[in-house]
Formats: sequence, structure tokens, C-alpha cells
Amino acid sequence: MSTSVVTVGAGMFADAVAGQAVDVERVDWRPPMPGTQDDLAAVATDRRRPEANRRAVEAMLGVTAHLVDVAPASEVLGLEKGQFLHAGPPIEWERTSGPLRGALMGGAALEGLVEDPEDAVALFESGSSVSLEPCHHRSAVGPMAGVVTPSMWMWVLEDRATGKRTYCSLNEGLGKVLRYGAYGPDVLTRLRWMGDVLGPLLQAAVRGTEEATDVTGILTQMLQMGDEAHNRNRAGTLMLLRDLSPAMVGSIEGGGFASKDVADVLRFVGGNDHFFLNLAMPACKLALDAGRDVPGSTMVVAMARNGTDFGIQVSGTGDQWFTGPAQVAEGLFLGDYGPDDANPDIGDSAITETAGIGGFAMATAPAIVRLVGGSVPDALATTRRMHEITLAENPRWSVPVLEFQGTPTGIDVSKVCRTGILPQINTGMAGAVAGVGQVGAGLVTPPAEIFPQALAALAQAVPGRSL
Amino acid sequence: MSTSVVTVGAGMFADAVAGQAVDVERVDWRPPMPGTQDDLAAVATDRRRPEANRRAVEAMLGVTAHLVDVAPASEVLGLEKGQFLHAGPPIEWERTSGPLRGALMGGAALEGLVEDPEDAVALFESGSSVSLEPCHHRSAVGPMAGVVTPSMWMWVLEDRATGKRTYCSLNEGLGKVLRYGAYGPDVLTRLRWMGDVLGPLLQAAVRGTEEATDVTGILTQMLQMGDEAHNRNRAGTLMLLRDLSPAMVGSIEGGGFASKDVADVLRFVGGNDHFFLNLAMPACKLALDAGRDVPGSTMVVAMARNGTDFGIQVSGTGDQWFTGPAQVAEGLFLGDYGPDDANPDIGDSAITETAGIGGFAMATAPAIVRLVGGSVPDALATTRRMHEITLAENPRWSVPVLEFQGTPTGIDVSKVCRTGILPQINTGMAGAVAGVGQVGAGLVTPPAEIFPQALAALAQAVPGRSL
Repeated sequence: MSTSVVTVGAGMFADAVAGQAVDVERVDWRPPMPGTQDDLAAVATDRRRPEANRRAVEAMLGVTAHLVDVAPASEVLGLEKGQFLHAGPPIEWERTSGPLRGALMGGAALEGLVEDPEDAVALFESGSSVSLEPCHHRSAVGPMAGVVTPSMWMWVLEDRATGKRTYCSLNEGLGKVLRYGAYGPDVLTRLRWMGDVLGPLLQAAVRGTEEATDVTGILTQMLQMGDEAHNRNRAGTLMLLRDLSPAMVGSIEGGGFASKDVADVLRFVGGNDHFFLNLAMPACKLALDAGRDVPGSTMVVAMARNGTDFGIQVSGTGDQWFTGPAQVAEGLFLGDYGPDDANPDIGDSAITETAGIGGFAMATAPAIVRLVGGSVPDALATTRRMHEITLAENPRWSVPVLEFQGTPTGIDVSKVCRTGILPQINTGMAGAVAGVGQVGAGLVTPPAEIFPQALAALAQAVPGRSL
Repeated sequence: MSTSVVTVGAGMFADAVAGQAVDVERVDWRPPMPGTQDDLAAVATDRRRPEANRRAVEAMLGVTAHLVDVAPASEVLGLEKGQFLHAGPPIEWERTSGPLRGALMGGAALEGLVEDPEDAVALFESGSSVSLEPCHHRSAVGPMAGVVTPSMWMWVLEDRATGKRTYCSLNEGLGKVLRYGAYGPDVLTRLRWMGDVLGPLLQAAVRGTEEATDVTGILTQMLQMGDEAHNRNRAGTLMLLRDLSPAMVGSIEGGGFASKDVADVLRFVGGNDHFFLNLAMPACKLALDAGRDVPGSTMVVAMARNGTDFGIQVSGTGDQWFTGPAQVAEGLFLGDYGPDDANPDIGDSAITETAGIGGFAMATAPAIVRLVGGSVPDALATTRRMHEITLAENPRWSVPVLEFQGTPTGIDVSKVCRTGILPQINTGMAGAVAGVGQVGAGLVTPPAEIFPQALAALAQAVPGRSL
């Protein structure tokens, strides 16, 4: 039987049918983003572009992230007392949103800069002896507020081919946690336990595991197990436990750890489906960092939000951030919370979408609609749609239900501007008020204007461009 | 947008589109199985039937299987030296196939009845001091050859509402293992380690875990994580490890177990994606046993194969087996093996399909086509097709990609005979020669004739039927 379907403007049905391997002839057309025609034309004539994008994609897809260590940020990032890392593009205290403020206040108390987190407000307002810096500027990423302080233990991932490393803090679980802006006594007690017990034991386990865990490979398996690795990390968390638990047990005799602490750590990790997110994120960053700084490449290498601004970085434009106002996600809320309680989009976790998973891979994780909202056909259609704004399919990260098609990988600024299709991100939602914690989860996009901004900068950089 | 599609005889496409929530009008028709018209008419007039099937389904769906113990078969099944349980319907030594023979020979050596497994042939031929009995006759199930001997440790599952229990041996892993008919020194060494270390440690863990593991609930999660719980049990195995590992670690101080043994057990279980199968099977049997013995019910309560015969039992016909020749699966082969090396279908594991998972839930586990063959659209279409021969959808076991539709549950003998659609089973393939082990995995159906047999018996039992 040969079946052919022609669709006009019925994207969802076309996507659904295409997902079932029926030939579909697409005849829908979308106008480019307003005001981008000249820059699109300029970038289209950049003769470096095809090869530059090929190189950026190849470098990104060539990275395998191995888990090589766990250690305090003071050691591996050289972070000193008073230095705070945060998610998203650079921001000053005055412009920070509630959840980032709350996390900074809790972080200051954790480091002993203040006794009471409330006292940290004056400290940050004064600006003396404290400084804020994006995680991304230190080869790190942080979910939600993404606050990292010197005493926090970090996952260390390495690309063995180049020796390059990326870093991420350990995941605290859900609800009232620092990364969602909560800073109560429970939050600080948990963070201290993570520093005293969880970090050292994970370090012993990672150092005691004969073959380093292949995080990129676990991501391959996760995509066959209903995880999209942003808001579903269930299978990933379980595979990490599987890989590390024998060495954890070994550390009882070998490292003098208490068996009660080992059991507590197994329970803590096993009880937190999101634990692996903090490994998925630096694995994605490690891959994307390899695609940075290729002159002429229009590939996005970072998307990140600080709760106020949404920023992107692009391979062909170096470390420059293109920013616009972070949007509020649409989705499902916990308990009595509603849209008015939600802070705008926050966190470095959109690095997963930048690498082609998370919102880009929702077709492989349809159960996620119960968390972030939307329908199953939407989830399938979203992955299909993201192929229209990306440069490649990732052969190692495939979606079984789409007949093992690789995930849409490498967002192309030109394609976004030409189609008006924005990258789809799924995300947790923090309460707008410092101290509240998580209020829901949902779907969000970057502010549209940052892509024309980036395109303009790419157009400016085209050699021999007539002005 | 409202889309409507009319299909004639294009089942796969219709299933695929229906899977995407597009309205489909089915106009295809299949003839009933030859010679079943009179019995179908008789059963259709049985006024007990609707209520009987409702009761059988309700009883089955009402069962929650908790993991309550691990103990030797001698203790929990009262199995004595010389007594052997096996998969499938009853069979005598003379008619056994290679893999069942191999497993019985290995089992005899494990129990010390013979020194050399080869010497067991004479023992079974003589028939003195040995006896064979189906697992199903002792509330147990066994994958592949399904041989259980007194010293083997068994999972013990309980339906707390009724106190009923079911049992299954521990999974050995893949390749050269007893259940696939291998009986070499490695096989016996592993079985002895399972008896000396794995069983006792799992017992300590299960008894030391505060809240008994809800196996039915883990199956719910598995179906959202790409497992169909027959030939994919990856997520299930990992969730079991998560649930039991803290108590395993606790047994080091509390129970005097060596930390090296705990680490070995974590590695053994973590290295065997199929480990959870031996919990999925007795959970399915526990549910189906609750649906047994309802007069007038046409629901299948067991499908099982001994490597020679394929047998089913039906709720309305008590313990009677309806049998026909087991078929050879079609699928993918390991290494240089081919179809000529494969034994006919064997094992009690088709209890998963009987309960509505395994082959019936392949839509939720499309990655399985890489193991058992077929295509992703086939996998989606198969689950859809099984709804045509089943009585209910299981609300606890849903398929996200089919918009959370419950799995097709409760095979109806009448519907099978009326449509000619046979239950779809996916399965491992054992080598036909005793001692070989696994040769592949594939797809298989029961022999068609056993359903008209069962239908005839149901028709005979209709009260007031004119002969």
C-alpha cells in the first residue's frame, strides 16, 4: 500500500501522519520574522556559512561526556567566598527576580556570610565583598536560579578527546529548594547534608567506579525510556544509581563511610526523579561548547535565563549575549498556585533544548504532558516542528516512536528568523516571590526578538558585506 | 480542525492514524474461524456471559501485587527432592523439547540427584523418584523452560485484599542459562551463587524494606518508560534496585552480610535488564488467577508453552488446558543462529500478554523492534489490534503515546474466534538442542485451533443448551 497525504496549514495532523512514516507533502509557508529580510539575505550570501555550520555541528555531535569527578566548586571552579554564580546571562542584583534573590540569600547564609538569609539583602545591595557571574562564564550550568557557591559540590564532566570539562551542582529534589528560590532552615539543612555526606560519598563512588559513567550514552538510553532529559529524568536517575551504587557500597569498607549514610544517599537519589538533570545539563553544555566560536556559523550554542532576561549565544558571534525579557510559561500548577504566582522563565536548563533534547524530544516522552501540559499529539508535533529550525539530526539520540529519527539538533538562527518558529522549551516554574519555591511546570519559548538581534550581528560579521 | 479518514483493508495505516487521535471509521471485516459458527451462536446466547466477563475482568483489574518475601521453593511451594516444576501445560519426559530437557538435566544436577547432568537422562527416562508438574499448578510461573527445583529461591507476591500468593524463580540473566536449556558448569555455578548469596540477600532486603514494593505500580511506571514488561524490563529492573538497595546496604550491619556480596548483587541485578521479568510474570498471574472459575466467562486466564505444546486456560472452564502445537517465532537471531536452530515457543511468560502487557503493549515500547523484529508502525498497530479481541482497557496500565489509553486486557475466546485475530506474543527463542541456550527473540502467536477448542467447551457448558 502506498499512501500519500497532502496537507495545507494542518500542521498537527501532518506531523502526526508523518510520525507514522506516511509520505507527506508540506505546502504550508510561514513569513519570515518582520524586519529580517536584509539580514537573512546577507547571511545567506555568507560563503563561510555551510562549512561553518557543518563544523559546528560535527564538533557538537562528536563529544562524549564522561563523569570523571565530584568536588567542591572552590576546588574545581576556583570560586572564592563572596563569589556567586547564577543561571542565565549577566545581571545585577537590582534587576534580579524573586527566585534568584531567594537563592542568593540562601547561598550567602550557606557560606556563612550572614547568619539570617534576610540579612543578605543589605549585603547584595551594598555590592561590597560579593559578586555575581553567570555559570556559563565558568564552564558551568545551573538549573533554575542556578546559584553556585564555593562550598557546593559539583559534577565534573569531561570530553576525553579534548580534555575540556563542564560542571554542575548536585540536584536537591523538588518543592522548597534553593534553586526555586526557597531559603528556609530545611533548605539550608539539606544543602549542608549534601556538602557533608552526599558530595563526599558521590566523589568516592565516582572515583571508585572502574569505568567512568558515559553520560552521553545514558542520554541515548533515556530517550528510549520515556525521558526527554529536561523535565523527565527518571530512567537517567535510575541508571546513574545502577552505575554508582556498587562503588558506594565499596566505600563502606574501602573509604570508611557509614553504611547508614550510604543507605541515606541511595534513598535520597532514588527518591528524586530529577537528580540526573544536573548531569544531562553539563553533558549538553560540553557538546555545545565544542561548537562555539566557528566564524560564520549561525548555530545557537547556549540558551539561558536569569529570571529577568532570556539570553542566547551563537557560534559565529563568540561570547556575546543576545537578550530579551524572559516569558512566563504556560502549563500546570501545583496546589492552589496559578499564573499570577509564577516568575518569568529562569535557569540554564534550556541548554538541553539547545542540544536537541528536552522540549525538542518530547515525542519520545509523551507522558510529560501530564507534568507540563499540552496533549500527546502536541508533543509529537513539537519534535517534528523543531526539525524545521535545526541543522541536524543527532544519530546517537533517537526517538523510537518516530522510527528512530535522530533528535532535532543545532538551532539555526537563520531558520528561526526565516520561519518564525521559536524553540520549544519545557520548564519548571518558580514562584515569583523569593522563598516560595516551585509553583508548577509548563511550556515556554524565548522572546522572539533575540533571534533577529543575533541575525543582525551575524550579518554585520559577513566578510565584504556592503553597508 | 476536524479530520476524518475512511479506510478499507489498510489496517496498519488506520491503526497509525487512530493512534494519533484522528477519527477513523473502520470498515474492514474478517470472517470467523472456520467451524466456529454454531459454538459462537451458543456462547452468544449464554445469558451469564456479560456479567461473568464483567466479574472476571473486575476481579483481575482489582489485584495489586506486593512483593512480600523471597524464599526457597522447598519452603514456599513445599517442593520436595525429585519434584520438578516446568513451564506450560503438563507434559511427560518423552515429549519434552530440547530446552526443557536441558533445564531438567541441569536442575537434577543442581539438586544433587546426579553428578553429571548427562546422567539425568536415564533418571527421567526411568521416571522413578522424579516427577514433572506445571508451575501453573502450584501458583507459580517460570520463564522459558521454567524449571523450578526445591533449592531455588522464589519471589513471593501477595494480593493483600485476599491473601492469595504467586511465585516465580529469580532471573539468571541472558545467554547460556538454565531457562534457555543450558546446563554447563558455568550455569550451575551461577545457580549455586544465586542460592547461596542472591536469594538470602534479596530475602533480607525484602524483609528489611519498610513498605513492600508495589509490583503492579512499578508496571504502571514501566509502561511510561518504554518497557512492555515481557522482553523489555529495563526500567522495571532499575526501579526494583532503587527500592531494594537501601535495605540491602542495611543488611550489612543489620544482617551480617558482606559488603562485597552486596556490591556483587547490585552489579548482577544492574547488569541484567530482564531481571524484573520474574516479578512482572507472577504479578500478571496473581491478577489473572483472581479472574478464574467464573462460570460463563470466556476470558483467557493463562497462556503457557512447554516447548512442545501451547496451552490456554479459560475462566469459565476451570483448570482444563486447551492445547495445540507450539509455533516457532519469527524474529532476529543472535550471532550465526537461524530459524533452523530455534525451538518452538516455550515458557509461562505469555502470562504477560494474557494480562495485557508484553506483545499487547508494544506501542509503548517501540524500541523493542530492534530486539524482536518488525517495524515501529507494526508495534503501534499491534496494540490497537489487540483491543479487538479483549474485554477491557486496564486503567492502571496506560500507553502514553496512544493518549494514555489503557492496555488491551482480558482476551475473549469468542472475540478471537469471531475475528480470527490471534493474541500477539513477543518472546525469547531457545535453541532446539538441549544445552545451547538463547538463539534469538521474535514474535509468535498461539496455534489457532486452541481457541475453537476452548469455545466448544464453553458452548457445551451453556445451561439449557439444546444438543
